[in-house]
Formats: sequence, C-alpha cells, structure tokens
Amino acid sequence: MSASSHVQTVLARADADFDAALQRLFALLRIKSISADPAFAADCRAAADHLAADIASIGFDAEVRPTAGHPAIVAKAKTNTGNRPHALFYGHYDVQPVDPVELWHRPPFEPVIADHADGRKIIVARGAQDDKGQLSTFVEACRAWNDATGELPIDLTIVIEGEEEVGSKNFVPFLDAHKKDLAADFALVCDTGMWDRHTPAITTSLRGLVYEEVKIKAANRDLHSGVYGGGAQNPIRVLTRILGGLHDEHGRITIPGFYDGVKDLPPEILAQWKGLNLTAENFLGPIGLSIPAGEDDRLLIEQLISRPTCDINGIVGGYTGEGSKTVIAAEASAKVSFRIVEGQDPNRIRDAFRAYVTARLPGDCRAEFLDHSNGAAIALPWDMKPLAAARRALTEEWGRDAVLIGSGASIPIVADFKRTLGLDSVLIGFGLDDDNIHSPNEKYDLNSFQKGIRSWVRILGALAEAPR
Amino acid sequence: MSASSHVQTVLARADADFDAALQRLFALLRIKSISADPAFAADCRAAADHLAADIASIGFDAEVRPTAGHPAIVAKAKTNTGNRPHALFYGHYDVQPVDPVELWHRPPFEPVIADHADGRKIIVARGAQDDKGQLSTFVEACRAWNDATGELPIDLTIVIEGEEEVGSKNFVPFLDAHKKDLAADFALVCDTGMWDRHTPAITTSLRGLVYEEVKIKAANRDLHSGVYGGGAQNPIRVLTRILGGLHDEHGRITIPGFYDGVKDLPPEILAQWKGLNLTAENFLGPIGLSIPAGEDDRLLIEQLISRPTCDINGIVGGYTGEGSKTVIAAEASAKVSFRIVEGQDPNRIRDAFRAYVTARLPGDCRAEFLDHSNGAAIALPWDMKPLAAARRALTEEWGRDAVLIGSGASIPIVADFKRTLGLDSVLIGFGLDDDNIHSPNEKYDLNSFQKGIRSWVRILGALAEAPR
Repeated sequence: MSASSHVQTVLARADADFDAALQRLFALLRIKSISADPAFAADCRAAADHLAADIASIGFDAEVRPTAGHPAIVAKAKTNTGNRPHALFYGHYDVQPVDPVELWHRPPFEPVIADHADGRKIIVARGAQDDKGQLSTFVEACRAWNDATGELPIDLTIVIEGEEEVGSKNFVPFLDAHKKDLAADFALVCDTGMWDRHTPAITTSLRGLVYEEVKIKAANRDLHSGVYGGGAQNPIRVLTRILGGLHDEHGRITIPGFYDGVKDLPPEILAQWKGLNLTAENFLGPIGLSIPAGEDDRLLIEQLISRPTCDINGIVGGYTGEGSKTVIAAEASAKVSFRIVEGQDPNRIRDAFRAYVTARLPGDCRAEFLDHSNGAAIALPWDMKPLAAARRALTEEWGRDAVLIGSGASIPIVADFKRTLGLDSVLIGFGLDDDNIHSPNEKYDLNSFQKGIRSWVRILGALAEAPR
Repeated sequence: MSASSHVQTVLARADADFDAALQRLFALLRIKSISADPAFAADCRAAADHLAADIASIGFDAEVRPTAGHPAIVAKAKTNTGNRPHALFYGHYDVQPVDPVELWHRPPFEPVIADHADGRKIIVARGAQDDKGQLSTFVEACRAWNDATGELPIDLTIVIEGEEEVGSKNFVPFLDAHKKDLAADFALVCDTGMWDRHTPAITTSLRGLVYEEVKIKAANRDLHSGVYGGGAQNPIRVLTRILGGLHDEHGRITIPGFYDGVKDLPPEILAQWKGLNLTAENFLGPIGLSIPAGEDDRLLIEQLISRPTCDINGIVGGYTGEGSKTVIAAEASAKVSFRIVEGQDPNRIRDAFRAYVTARLPGDCRAEFLDHSNGAAIALPWDMKPLAAARRALTEEWGRDAVLIGSGASIPIVADFKRTLGLDSVLIGFGLDDDNIHSPNEKYDLNSFQKGIRSWVRILGALAEAPR
C-alpha cells in the first residue's frame, strides 16, 4: 500500500489517541526547562531525558547527547531505509523564563485547559506553544504512523535542542560535529505560526538582521549650554541630523546601494499575498496605528515581509531625567537595525550604513560602531519539492489554501542548517499571534495542537510520495 | 574733598587691611550654608546673622529678614543722604552642595590658601568664589571707604539672599514685598566673571532660555521590529527626522520666524569683541574641539554670546541598555532648549518650536510638550551712565580696558530686579573660568579677591561723581 492510502487510518489513530497525547504534552510542560537560568540546568536535562525516552518508544533510536551547554536529542527512525526521502525534524525543548511571574493567572508549569474569552479551548503553560506544544505535534504524528502502520512513511531524523531561547550558541558547533549523523534531504522546522486561526501557512522567507550601534562623540566632556551653546558641536544634533535622513519622504531608505540586489516578488506570490487582504485597519488598528509607515508604493504586507527596513531601536544622549539640565553632552548613541531580504549582503549593508554615517559627520565629531548582529535573509526556493507536498497536505487538513508567507523576523537556525548541513528548511507551525510566547500566560490553541498533529500526519504521507 | 580725591587713601586702607579681610572671608567660608539641603538650614541662618553683624559694623543699619525660605539681609548705609546716586548691591550667601565630596582635595568648609599649579595663589573652599568671595570684595570695599573716610561715597543698600543656588523662588516675592526699602537708582551685582585673569569685564547682556521637552508617541505599546518593522511608525525615526532638521547646513536655525527681532551688535561693540580675539583654538581647544558649530557667517564670540541658539540637551527612546533588542518603541522624547537674545519673545519662540514640530508630524503620531523654562534675554543699555563710570574705574585698576561683554547664560535675578524694582543692573565680578564653581575644589584667585576689593573701591568713587 502507498503511504497516502494509510493516511485516513493514521488520522483516525491520532484522533483516538488525542487525550493521551495531551497528557503526554502536559507531562513535558511540567518540566521547568528554562535554559537561561543555570538554576534549571537539571530540569533541562530532565526534559531531554523525558523526551528521548518518549521518542524511543515510538520506533526511534534516541540518544541524549552532550553539548557545551544543555544537551540535545538525536533520534533516528528504526525504519530508515536510506532510499526514501529523508527529513531532519527540528524543535527545542527549552523555554523562556517566566518573569514577571505575578502576571500569570496560573502557575506557569502547571498546564491546564482553559476557555479563551472567545470560546476557544486553550492550553496554558510556559512552553505550551514555544516550542513544546509545537514539537509535540510532530512527535505525536510520528507516534500515530508508528502505531497504525508499524513504521514511519519516510526516513526521519529528529534533533531537539535545549538552548534555542538563549541563542543556540552551543548547538551550532554540535551541528558541525554531527554532520554525518544529521544528514538528510531537507529539514522540517516546527516553530512558526499560521496566517490566522483558519489559514495554514508555510514560512518560505525570513528577513535577516543587521544590528548596529553608533556612538557620536564631540567634546571631551559634558558642557554647560549657557557657556558653550552655539559654539560647541552637539553630538545629539549630529546624531539626529544623520539618523533623521535615513528615510526619504516616501519611506525609502536613503543609504546609497541599500536596495541593491533586492528583488520583486514573483507575480503569483504577490497575487496570493494581495488575496490575503492584510489591511492597515486589521493589522495596525490593534496597536493604535492606521497608516503603513514603509515605502509608500508597496503593500503593507510587502513592507512587513519582503521589503528591507531600517528601524532605530534605541537612542540616548544628554540629560534624560526629570526636569531640565542645560547640558551639551559629550556623546550620544543609537541602536539601528536593518531587516534585510534575499539579495542583500549583511556585510555590505553594515559597511554602507557606517559609510553613510561617517560621510555625514561634521568636523570635530567621531563615530564609533558596534556590531550587534549580522545575519543574512533566508529565502527558500518557492519551487522546492517537499514544500509543494506539504502545502497540499495542509490545504487538505484545513480546507483552505496554505499560504506561502515570509516572516519579518529571523530564525537563525535555518541559516545554520543551510550552512552546516546544506539543508533547506520547510517551516510549518501552528502558532497564532495571540499565543503570548515569551510573555506571561503563554497558550496554544487546543485546535492548533490537534489539527497540528493531523497536519503532520498528512504531510508525512505526502512527503512519502513526493519526488526526492 | 571730592570722592575721587579720596580714592588713593581708601585703596591704601584696603591694602593695609587685606590680611584681616582674608580672615573675615575665611570665617564666612567656614559656615556650611548649603541652601539645597534642609539639614543645613541653621547654617544658612548663621551665615545671614554673621554677615549682617559684619555689615552693621561698617556703617550700615543691617537686618536679617525672614523669607518663606532662608532669610535675606537688608542693609542701608547710615550715611545715605537721598541726594546722591543710590546703588542696590546684590549677592548671595548660600552655596552649592559639596557632592561628590570625595573629589575634594581638602574639606570644603576649611578654607586655605593654596598654590595653583601655575604659581597663582588661590583660596580654596566651597563658596570661595560663588558667591561669598565675590560679595566680600564689595563688603570689604565699603569697609575701606568707611574706615578711611567715615562714610560711604554714594547712597547704598545691600541685599544678600540665601536661596540663589536653589532658584530664588522665595526671594522674588521678598523683593515685591520690600520694594520701598530696596528703592535705588540701579543695581550692582557681583556674581559674574572677568574676560580672562588680566582683563576685567562688565556683563551687559544675558541670553534668555526657552527650554522645552517634546515627546512623540505612535503605537499604543512597544512592538517587535521583526513583526512590525517596516509597517509601523517608529517615533524615534520621527523625532530624529524633526530634530535633525532644526539647523541648516550653515548652522542657522530653521524654525520659521526664529530670528525675527534679533539685532546685529552695535559696530563699536563688534569691533571691541573682534579685538578680544576669541579663537576656536583658545576657547574650543581645551574641550577637544576646533570648529565653531554655530552660524558659519558669525564670529565664535557672537555664536556664544549675542546669537540665539538651539541645543538638544537630552534624547531618549527605545532600548538603551547593553546589547541589542529588536524593539520599536511606543514613544521617544527630547529636551530642547533655546538660548534667546534681546528682541526675541520667549513665548513666540516656544510657540514657533511647537508649531515646527507639529507641522512635521506624520499621521499616527502625536506630540506632547512640556515647558521647563521660559525666560527673556536681558540687554542692559550700552550707554547706561553708571556703566561708563564703572568701566573707567575697572580700567584704571587693571591697566587694561574693561570689556563690555555678554553672557551666554542666564542670571534670572537681573530680570527680577528690572521687573519688581525697575532697576537696571551693572554686573561686575572677578571670577575666572577655572574657578570650579558648583564643582569640587572651588577656588577664587587671591588676586581676584584683592584687586576685586580695590576695583569696588574705585568704582564707588567713580559712581559718586557720575551723573545720576
């Protein structure tokens, strides 16, 4: 029998087992695997052990392997054949800290099913979505396949790390050291969201990030503006003048060469995005805004996803306390970041920004720069074969076309998979904008969890029949 | 005998008494009359009592009078006749706090004579210059006149307050309440400086100050730049764009109407100022700068004294800690001040600034303003008669032409004298730029103290012969 002929059986199995799946998720959510706080190192280890044991019970050889930080899990399906499509699944078992804990309505590590104000059932706990709930949708789909058919329909390796929330700095060397064990045809990542609660999405592009800090210095000390005002250069004046010129009146970024290499969307994607009807009213209204602030000849959705941006994330200089002080500061600084897109080289963007600032410095002023981040954008091939299969499967499950969407934010692991393992990633997740990830009262819709499991059941079936 | 024929006698008396004058100054400096700290209220009262008793001993009816805060001293010369020129002398006995006290080389209230690195003798203590040393030059000159001739050469009222360092807020109502007692022809104020240690100066203009705080608000909360970047308005971008346009490429302020009413200097004053040869090297070099930053068609001395300015004194918004945060802030704010000159109306300047900002606000942004200060410039008549007499006397004492100079900073009491008592003020003082007033290790040159006394001896003599 072909994999697709099994899908209905496996879906029935997943549905029958859903209450138990929920209990398994709750058991995982009770483990306080906060990676940022060394006090929870044993909990992180416990989460890894717990997950590895569970995965081992559904047809995998699973091991907890050490890294320089919290351990990672590597699991290979016992039914791997070497001549089927081979996917590397990625998730993370670590969670964000729970502060401010007093804003939680319930203890963050005592998961419950609650009623959302609008009637939805939600799972509430730290990690309910990010990423314990999400990774569990995949693990439960594997279980259903294994339980119903005695095997996984494609070759599978699962890797789950424990330091995503603290920057994965030990996981990237781990990837490098385990290249052979992690070899696959493509990666599957479950750490993203849906377009809305009715519309599934595959994230096919991620903006990169160039994050610079610039400090302008003038006099060798703070000055009294009564004595020196008018005669002495003021670094805040210089900084505002330079930063204030970064955008033109059409919202375009004025740094020479900034848009070099930026491509327009393929017409079919642009048409799809137009169809999503992302309006200023819907998207900006809830945050108190009404007017898209980006390039005025672009759709709001392009401004947010496919166009590069420049934001000043922080600025400080001089006296900022209560009342007034007649000071001319010796220095002023700003944090400036660029969300960059496919075709833009982060090093060239950083250099162009620095050159832009330096060229506009008046005499007597110096600029110092600090590189806080420098990551390229990721664009997955729109025509990648597993993506078409996954899209078909999602559309079947949700009864709506799955949209191919970009994310305005960065997920660095995707670039790491490409660089270390040579893998493109298919990013599919069931998170919603109101999940409060990284915040108090994190939740995951019960529907996201259940239909997430069913989605992966279908995706695994579809991938089994996709051309490699 | 005319007053001028007494001057040499009085000078000789002042010189002979100088060591005693120094001891009297030291006694005053030992009193910890810090007005800002309620713990020193009794010391302030003690300083007032001490000074009043001393002034009473040199031919004055002196009283300590209550205010709503620390008391003030009012003293009238017993020899007032009602038909001679009548001067109201002003000084203040209160001093700044001494923090950070660990930076003082000696206890701040144990005055000593020390050797400056370049060989000058200096008096070191809190208040050595500001204003106990300065006011004592006048009191000692009165003593010398009284001791040598048995009278003061002009009619004199002395008023000394105890809250100058905390804004004189109780002294202004005191002036209003004692108008009759304080009636005079003009005021003498000893709280300013010399041009340099060889060149005496009379301060004839003071810039006013309009100090605004502006806050730009956009979204109703902080946003993640990965999700909203490009689409959501960023208040720091708006603020830098608006503030960055306040000056044009020639250093001119671009607010419409800003320069309305600003007059050029009288040619003779401009010629005198040119002769002072205030170079960028001399003035800006010590603070690490080399290029005057104001209007590029003006002399540096004009930029500092007679031209209005705009300085951004502080700016803050978004994330300003270590590292990076991809935030779009909900608001950003800046403190912006204008040093204004004769002919500019502070209310019109404030309104013009607010209109400038408001006109440049993009949709979705709001601006809030806070008025921190709003004081007009003071310009004394260049041809005021006591001023010519004082200038002649200073030139005789120092062997150099006394310069008529403006101050870039504000001395609010001068406007208060004009408004409450109708008096123009002649501002003469012997401070130097390196006196560290308001800072640790405040000092007063011994030469400033001695020749300051001698200067007032001569000025009183010259005023006695000046036309009223």
